[in-house]
Amino acid sequence: MLTRSPLAPKAFPQLPAIDGVRTASLAVGVKYANREDVLVAELTEGTTVAGVFTKSLCPSAPVDWCRQVLPKGTARALVVNSGNANAFTGSAGIASVERTAAAAARVFDCAVNEVFLASTGVIGEPLPDEKITAAFPKAKEALKAGAWSGAAGAIMTTDTFPKGATAKATLGGVEVTINGIAKGSGMIAPDMATMLGFLFTDANLPAGLLQKLLSDASDRSFNCVTVDSDTSTSDTVLLFATGKAGNDPDADLADFKRALNEVCTDLAQQLAKDGEGAEKFVITGAENREAAKVIALAVANSPLVKTAVAGEDANWGRVVMAIGKAGQKAERDKIAITIGGIQVAKDGQVVPGYDEAPVAQHMKGRNIVIEADVGVGSGAATVWTCDLTHRYIDINADYRT
Amino acid sequence: MLTRSPLAPKAFPQLPAIDGVRTASLAVGVKYANREDVLVAELTEGTTVAGVFTKSLCPSAPVDWCRQVLPKGTARALVVNSGNANAFTGSAGIASVERTAAAAARVFDCAVNEVFLASTGVIGEPLPDEKITAAFPKAKEALKAGAWSGAAGAIMTTDTFPKGATAKATLGGVEVTINGIAKGSGMIAPDMATMLGFLFTDANLPAGLLQKLLSDASDRSFNCVTVDSDTSTSDTVLLFATGKAGNDPDADLADFKRALNEVCTDLAQQLAKDGEGAEKFVITGAENREAAKVIALAVANSPLVKTAVAGEDANWGRVVMAIGKAGQKAERDKIAITIGGIQVAKDGQVVPGYDEAPVAQHMKGRNIVIEADVGVGSGAATVWTCDLTHRYIDINADYRT
Repeated sequence: MLTRSPLAPKAFPQLPAIDGVRTASLAVGVKYANREDVLVAELTEGTTVAGVFTKSLCPSAPVDWCRQVLPKGTARALVVNSGNANAFTGSAGIASVERTAAAAARVFDCAVNEVFLASTGVIGEPLPDEKITAAFPKAKEALKAGAWSGAAGAIMTTDTFPKGATAKATLGGVEVTINGIAKGSGMIAPDMATMLGFLFTDANLPAGLLQKLLSDASDRSFNCVTVDSDTSTSDTVLLFATGKAGNDPDADLADFKRALNEVCTDLAQQLAKDGEGAEKFVITGAENREAAKVIALAVANSPLVKTAVAGEDANWGRVVMAIGKAGQKAERDKIAITIGGIQVAKDGQVVPGYDEAPVAQHMKGRNIVIEADVGVGSGAATVWTCDLTHRYIDINADYRT
Repeated sequence: MLTRSPLAPKAFPQLPAIDGVRTASLAVGVKYANREDVLVAELTEGTTVAGVFTKSLCPSAPVDWCRQVLPKGTARALVVNSGNANAFTGSAGIASVERTAAAAARVFDCAVNEVFLASTGVIGEPLPDEKITAAFPKAKEALKAGAWSGAAGAIMTTDTFPKGATAKATLGGVEVTINGIAKGSGMIAPDMATMLGFLFTDANLPAGLLQKLLSDASDRSFNCVTVDSDTSTSDTVLLFATGKAGNDPDADLADFKRALNEVCTDLAQQLAKDGEGAEKFVITGAENREAAKVIALAVANSPLVKTAVAGEDANWGRVVMAIGKAGQKAERDKIAITIGGIQVAKDGQVVPGYDEAPVAQHMKGRNIVIEADVGVGSGAATVWTCDLTHRYIDINADYRT
């Protein structure tokens, strides 16, 4: 068991029950012993669903399954296991997701294409789905509203703390709640950087609209977190809306969007914080927002930048290097960089005689903020990442064996 | 001083003199004390030149300089310093390359645009070019033919051994020689992964043709080495042809190409070997050669793959992950992977019951070979890299301070 990240919140947050959602967490021994490793969620009839998935061209069997059933737009059950990703398992993987969905559909009395699946853990090993499906009757009996902490714990792999977030919004005059749980570690790598996120709301919104809202929110949150540039075979974010709040689905969405972004950003930042140190990179002055994000990710993914931060070294030269390799427009002789709010470079050169003491002090902290203006426009983006440390090597050099 | 890489050759190879090239290596104290840190090469009149440079959009001042003078196509002097990259130095950097080139032109009695410059080391600090130019008269007196080992040593930064290679070719019935020296470490990162390579031949070839030959050879050698995906502000490879062999410039080039590729590939592999462990990734079955190279680099740059290799873990699942993220066509259910020649995955699944003992044995070695067929075509590419180890973190986490 890994030591809890020093950046972890003191406790799992208070998440209220969501009308129409009940969950159960079970220990079935997919791989881990002595811990809950399967999450089952029952969703009330009429629940709509949206999803975003890994861009990997070698996705896992559950990702293929979710993509296949998503167009129906309704969901009645979610089954997630940790310990095995059911990825690169060929025809055996396909058969196992079909068996799991069929078993869930029987137990929860719904159509197979209303069952959503996610798996996270080692890849290349057949999933013992019989262990999971055998537990469904027991899971059904154990279903409870508001059991979010257990749900967040069951989906963890190398996470050092369970991740949850909640927000309220007003939608057409009605108060609605959005809860989210996620897994994925600042040391994400052991299971291919897999990030799973499950969001639940009692809002009443059609699937098409829900999809647009989730895609936008993910783009500004989950897709702005990076650990090592590697892409999971299994990344999955699903948003379920039970409709129990009974709001007018044509209501103004501004406040709901705000709340959804809040929950997604909170979870995304918790992912970056599940390491020894967290970093925030802000790029401004890019051609547009997309260009800014590409540059910000190039900086955040640079092993040189990350090792410098791990070494508490305010090595802004490596930030310039990473800006240069991003392939997006940047005006070298206009680049300006601040570290912890202190300007260290301007007009493409070091600021002569800048005070290194507060910069060095900032680098000793756990929440590093590096901002760079690349001098060509008004595009801006923020991404979060974590250190590249000896611990990353330790964890990843002997995961499988 | 870093421990010499266990993969270093026993000794610097025997490189013959090249008619028309004399070099001098000097200790001027740009940054390092008690070692030679400047290389000056004098090139005979009529020497043609070709160059390839970093793709960084924030290149160093010497890279800008070389790009600017290259179109003339002739060269009379090369000045290289280690310890300071003269990158992100703004107008001061431009002024310093102009002063250095002007001083060299006076001493070597040539035009300023026949002087080529390269710098490697820390970035963002003004280059003390007066230390370098003050040494030119002394350098001129010290010029010698065949002093390659000293030349290769003067351009090193964190390299643990000097790198040289040589080959002979027949060009229009005449024997010609190609020598090369390079710097850049398997732990390349400390100075932004800067790779410098200087090739010298007595062949008689026009600049335009030379450029085509060098671009092709670099693409198959230097551009196939990766350490951590970071891109230097300063990467430079120059090829100088003195013409002293007196061959017919219209001669058949096949044997010269073979020899040039040999020298470049030898140097490129030495770069990857300047670490604790070297890896070769071979991708086959891609749509075309370019796609294969993109996939091979994605695998070689993956921190997860690199830490697995460092941990002697035959974690082929991470290879699949990296293939999936490369963005090039791959047929997941046709992917086949061999490690050390032993097939571990086929048709998108693990080979049931494959013998893990020889695979584990191979992973304990220093020269790891991982091959993947992505199942869509006949494109193939090979890239070289090195481990991601604790040593990388050690070196890079406290370079500047």
